[in-house]
Amino acid sequence: MIIQLKQEVSDSQKEKLIARINEIGYKVTEVKTQMGDYLIGIGKTEFDIRKVGHLEGIQDIHIVSDDYKLVSKKWKVKPTCIDLGGGVTIKDGDMAIMAGPCSIESEEQILDVIGHLKENGIRMMRGGVFKPRSSPYAFRGLGMEGLRLWYQHAKAAGIKIVTEVMQVSQIEEMHDYVDVFQVGARNTQNFNLLDELGKIDKAVLIKRGISGTIEELLQSAEYVFSGGNEKLILCERGIRTYERASRNTLDLNAVPILKSKSHLPVVVDPSHGIGIRDFVAQMALSGVMSGADGIIYEVHRDPDKAYSDGQQTLNFAQSALLAEQIRKTFAMRKSFALL
Amino acid sequence: MIIQLKQEVSDSQKEKLIARINEIGYKVTEVKTQMGDYLIGIGKTEFDIRKVGHLEGIQDIHIVSDDYKLVSKKWKVKPTCIDLGGGVTIKDGDMAIMAGPCSIESEEQILDVIGHLKENGIRMMRGGVFKPRSSPYAFRGLGMEGLRLWYQHAKAAGIKIVTEVMQVSQIEEMHDYVDVFQVGARNTQNFNLLDELGKIDKAVLIKRGISGTIEELLQSAEYVFSGGNEKLILCERGIRTYERASRNTLDLNAVPILKSKSHLPVVVDPSHGIGIRDFVAQMALSGVMSGADGIIYEVHRDPDKAYSDGQQTLNFAQSALLAEQIRKTFAMRKSFALL
Amino acid sequence: MIIQLKQEVSDSQKEKLIARINEIGYKVTEVKTQMGDYLIGIGKTEFDIRKVGHLEGIQDIHIVSDDYKLVSKKWKVKPTCIDLGGGVTIKDGDMAIMAGPCSIESEEQILDVIGHLKENGIRMMRGGVFKPRSSPYAFRGLGMEGLRLWYQHAKAAGIKIVTEVMQVSQIEEMHDYVDVFQVGARNTQNFNLLDELGKIDKAVLIKRGISGTIEELLQSAEYVFSGGNEKLILCERGIRTYERASRNTLDLNAVPILKSKSHLPVVVDPSHGIGIRDFVAQMALSGVMSGADGIIYEVHRDPDKAYSDGQQTLNFAQSALLAEQIRKTFAMRKSFALL
Amino acid sequence: MIIQLKQEVSDSQKEKLIARINEIGYKVTEVKTQMGDYLIGIGKTEFDIRKVGHLEGIQDIHIVSDDYKLVSKKWKVKPTCIDLGGGVTIKDGDMAIMAGPCSIESEEQILDVIGHLKENGIRMMRGGVFKPRSSPYAFRGLGMEGLRLWYQHAKAAGIKIVTEVMQVSQIEEMHDYVDVFQVGARNTQNFNLLDELGKIDKAVLIKRGISGTIEELLQSAEYVFSGGNEKLILCERGIRTYERASRNTLDLNAVPILKSKSHLPVVVDPSHGIGIRDFVAQMALSGVMSGADGIIYEVHRDPDKAYSDGQQTLNFAQSALLAEQIRKTFAMRKSFALL
Repeated sequence: MIIQLKQEVSDSQKEKLIARINEIGYKVTEVKTQMGDYLIGIGKTEFDIRKVGHLEGIQDIHIVSDDYKLVSKKWKVKPTCIDLGGGVTIKDGDMAIMAGPCSIESEEQILDVIGHLKENGIRMMRGGVFKPRSSPYAFRGLGMEGLRLWYQHAKAAGIKIVTEVMQVSQIEEMHDYVDVFQVGARNTQNFNLLDELGKIDKAVLIKRGISGTIEELLQSAEYVFSGGNEKLILCERGIRTYERASRNTLDLNAVPILKSKSHLPVVVDPSHGIGIRDFVAQMALSGVMSGADGIIYEVHRDPDKAYSDGQQTLNFAQSALLAEQIRKTFAMRKSFALL
Repeated sequence: MIIQLKQEVSDSQKEKLIARINEIGYKVTEVKTQMGDYLIGIGKTEFDIRKVGHLEGIQDIHIVSDDYKLVSKKWKVKPTCIDLGGGVTIKDGDMAIMAGPCSIESEEQILDVIGHLKENGIRMMRGGVFKPRSSPYAFRGLGMEGLRLWYQHAKAAGIKIVTEVMQVSQIEEMHDYVDVFQVGARNTQNFNLLDELGKIDKAVLIKRGISGTIEELLQSAEYVFSGGNEKLILCERGIRTYERASRNTLDLNAVPILKSKSHLPVVVDPSHGIGIRDFVAQMALSGVMSGADGIIYEVHRDPDKAYSDGQQTLNFAQSALLAEQIRKTFAMRKSFALL
Repeated sequence: MIIQLKQEVSDSQKEKLIARINEIGYKVTEVKTQMGDYLIGIGKTEFDIRKVGHLEGIQDIHIVSDDYKLVSKKWKVKPTCIDLGGGVTIKDGDMAIMAGPCSIESEEQILDVIGHLKENGIRMMRGGVFKPRSSPYAFRGLGMEGLRLWYQHAKAAGIKIVTEVMQVSQIEEMHDYVDVFQVGARNTQNFNLLDELGKIDKAVLIKRGISGTIEELLQSAEYVFSGGNEKLILCERGIRTYERASRNTLDLNAVPILKSKSHLPVVVDPSHGIGIRDFVAQMALSGVMSGADGIIYEVHRDPDKAYSDGQQTLNFAQSALLAEQIRKTFAMRKSFALL
Repeated sequence: MIIQLKQEVSDSQKEKLIARINEIGYKVTEVKTQMGDYLIGIGKTEFDIRKVGHLEGIQDIHIVSDDYKLVSKKWKVKPTCIDLGGGVTIKDGDMAIMAGPCSIESEEQILDVIGHLKENGIRMMRGGVFKPRSSPYAFRGLGMEGLRLWYQHAKAAGIKIVTEVMQVSQIEEMHDYVDVFQVGARNTQNFNLLDELGKIDKAVLIKRGISGTIEELLQSAEYVFSGGNEKLILCERGIRTYERASRNTLDLNAVPILKSKSHLPVVVDPSHGIGIRDFVAQMALSGVMSGADGIIYEVHRDPDKAYSDGQQTLNFAQSALLAEQIRKTFAMRKSFALL
């Protein structure tokens, strides 16, 4: 159960509310985000709204029985819009495109990709400066130095930065240089990291876990939201199955299901989703048709020389064509009625 | 290794060829289909074409090291076209639509669905008369009686029949009434059934196994093909994973991968693929964008009263809209260049 | 709901019972096995036993809400004992050992293995004469000729035959030569085959599907049982997961779960369960400790020369040692109390 | 390739070695642990030992082509023994028992469990003070206060503490109170945490990821080892599959496979592995027979009142019986020869 409090709620009103809910046998967690103040009540019996509805300080009450409450569509019917400033948004009814290399490799590469994005009207650049690698002996990224270089050029070009944060201690140092913090598929259930990302005012893109369920993705988002940060984006990137012909199994079923359960925007990552360069475009366009609010993919001037993930990375010509096709496909989807 | 024989090859030429291949240490299987005569050689060393290339009776030789040979694109670059007659085809570069109820229930229902299909320009009707059910106490279909009724009305309307065959003994009795024999997901590796379907001259649609790999689907097709029947259609219908929010996990990655490996047409079943009526349309259109040559879905006048699978079945209005959107999406896909 | 009928029930009593159950809104299926006569009622409301309990012809009534009813422990508390004659049984509280080659290859091999089994007190021999192979070009077994040879020598040695039946048409020809019909992992949901096996009086060992759930295995057993054959054995043989270091993932959890849900005996196949010869023994002994009523494994005089599955087949020395360790481990398990 | 350096190696010898290996085209990572000094060479061509073997400072050279090198059995044939002091060890050829509640709940509960362990000769106590919870509204553990209380009583009783660390910042504060740091199944690929645990001198128990492969578990161990800490224990605790009848699928295949690939000890967690109290004992004993070096399970005086995981937690009587049966089963396993 979620009680959305009035903006002008007084402390004594809140205390009375909490006491009353406790009396009914519900445990209360107070959640303050940058946009509102909520009381989350958890209990085992059915909740009778009439028992608190008359108290002061309440804006609205919602019965939500899912394990994820604040990210549920059941109380917030209006979709969440993520506004990165400068006219760049990720939201329902629109098509965000995020593209860039797997790893940030050098200043030259940064400029190269930014040039490609600008030419194609893409306003968000993805790339890794801290790389999670299953082998300790592999390239682990350029780190803060790479991020600062990237920031300098991205800012000048009006491009927003989407990049992975791997641990709590990085949040502070990365904060000023990042527009969207990405939580990787291996960190989807790193609850301390999620807690800390709940305390900042930057957008957070959460990738579905390598074998995470749709419900677990929503619960991970609930962590960040209940920590205070409402600026969340969900990302389907393929799951682990027994199939070996592709790197992961892109689960596009997740897109309409997530959209029906949550008010948060959903993006699709076809590069990791299939892991084979020649088929990334088909999967991206399939993702558009499944109802995604955005596509995030990997691009590099010379994929075969990329430091990582080259086999699933598009070259500039492929990327330019794909961006155009994504937009056309999205325009057609928008024109379609749903019954 | 595949040796395609000349149409006018003599028996003595063939014997010489086989003897020569055996000498090289390869095991030979002769395959005669309605369209050609092949020698399949299986061996452990690399095959040196020059050692047989000069012999008589050879049309063409292809080195194919996959476990599936005859269905591989490596020797047959031209895509297979399945022609059901009356202008109804399933083929690369086209968009076949197959729709109908999960179960054939009554003459009234047959006429009802046929009417709906005709109105919407759909020429192939799916439906089950023998139903595989995990519980022995559930409805098992109308059987041959239902099929004969269906055939009578479908024929009159110029509609082709796609229906599941569950066992060898049914093939003969069903044969004259069926245009496309469907092999269900639980029978994908029923090798005796596949063997027998190799001996007939009707098209066969093979569904991917409930947890079958892409390679196993191709090997199952190889069974039918090597039995003598080249009229094969592959079908992605979702696989079993740990995810519980959908009935199956529709694996659209399989579409471009199958299309790149085989010359056979590939269709997508979004109804079983997601199992939730409200999202079937999105998954169908995603399937179109993934590169499918056709879509097969479930439709019923009153899905909530359907004998089976109602929760994933579209009503007539939804189906009419979807058929139109499938065609528009396909037209757009066709207009797209690929790099 | 299951109504077990009295042995001397009259037709009119049965009709009255069926009519009454129909009145209550339940669908009735009558099941006659070699051991009893049952009415299975399926309905959506809770069943009130008092509404039929007074009628004549009833031996006992059991409320069973699972999808599998006749194989459930809820109505039949006493475990099923499979008696193959000659003192060979498979039953709860005992430890059956079945061993033999993957494929029956020759008379010499048959004699060889029988000799090994006799020396080690093993009374059941497994082996394939019809082999399901994913490639149509692979060795498919010696067929009926091999079975007849095998039967002749097995009978003389007092050894029971466990072998796979792949299709309905084989049942009749194999019938007289087989003690236990095995349903392979690719046929667990071949419902026609299960139906037909319900009509015979030989024991049936059903392997869990390659990605079958525990519940599906029980439902497949229900098919055979409701067809009339109560002589059933369930077999855990590993499931398909994402893990690639072993051939399958042996799911020993399934053993106590199956034993708690059903009155049927459960055996474990460690050879397919792990697929690596060096570790078959550990998995067999783990299977014993998990509560299995039997172990079925592959053995061959010279595994590296076996026609199939050599990499998971024990040699005679390994097999002799394992049989002894299985018995010792089982004896210890039997001595353990459970809380 | 691993070069184990002599203890007395000089800096200039090391520099020469590194230069030489670089010349050959290999990348070198130097690894210093508390027990030795190694050079790890990674390259794409085959390594010719003769090209460096004559240089000074080398103790030994091993060709290891796996992605995990230092944890591989290929260079270190002797199994690793983890010595926690006071006569408590985890090692090959022995049977460690670790038991305790899911969550540390109160001082009373700590004393209660310690009493139970002492009575049954169990020297290691597991328990969580920081709890990873998928819902942000669930109980998250007593934290450092709970740990300090626990430490005080465990020390007095001669009991070793096994507890989960969730993030880098906790390592330092927990360090003095912990004997074995546990890395949970959601953190198996939290590479920053693994890096930091490489810098300490306490033992680390790494659980297999929720859907982690055997190879990924070894690579995670490689992270810690290459960070400098050789005191590692691997733990099989069940993986995520499609099966819903158990909480996880305990993969006992992993035990002999891990033991054959690595010199590290392997323990099995049957509580999470099956998730059903009544079957934990069978799975524990199966784990012993699979070759495990230890069993870790959950116990509580009153499982139904436990704060978490009650459904898979044994009571004291069950635990006492299990500990005895584990020892007897292990004694029998030890008496068995392997062929």
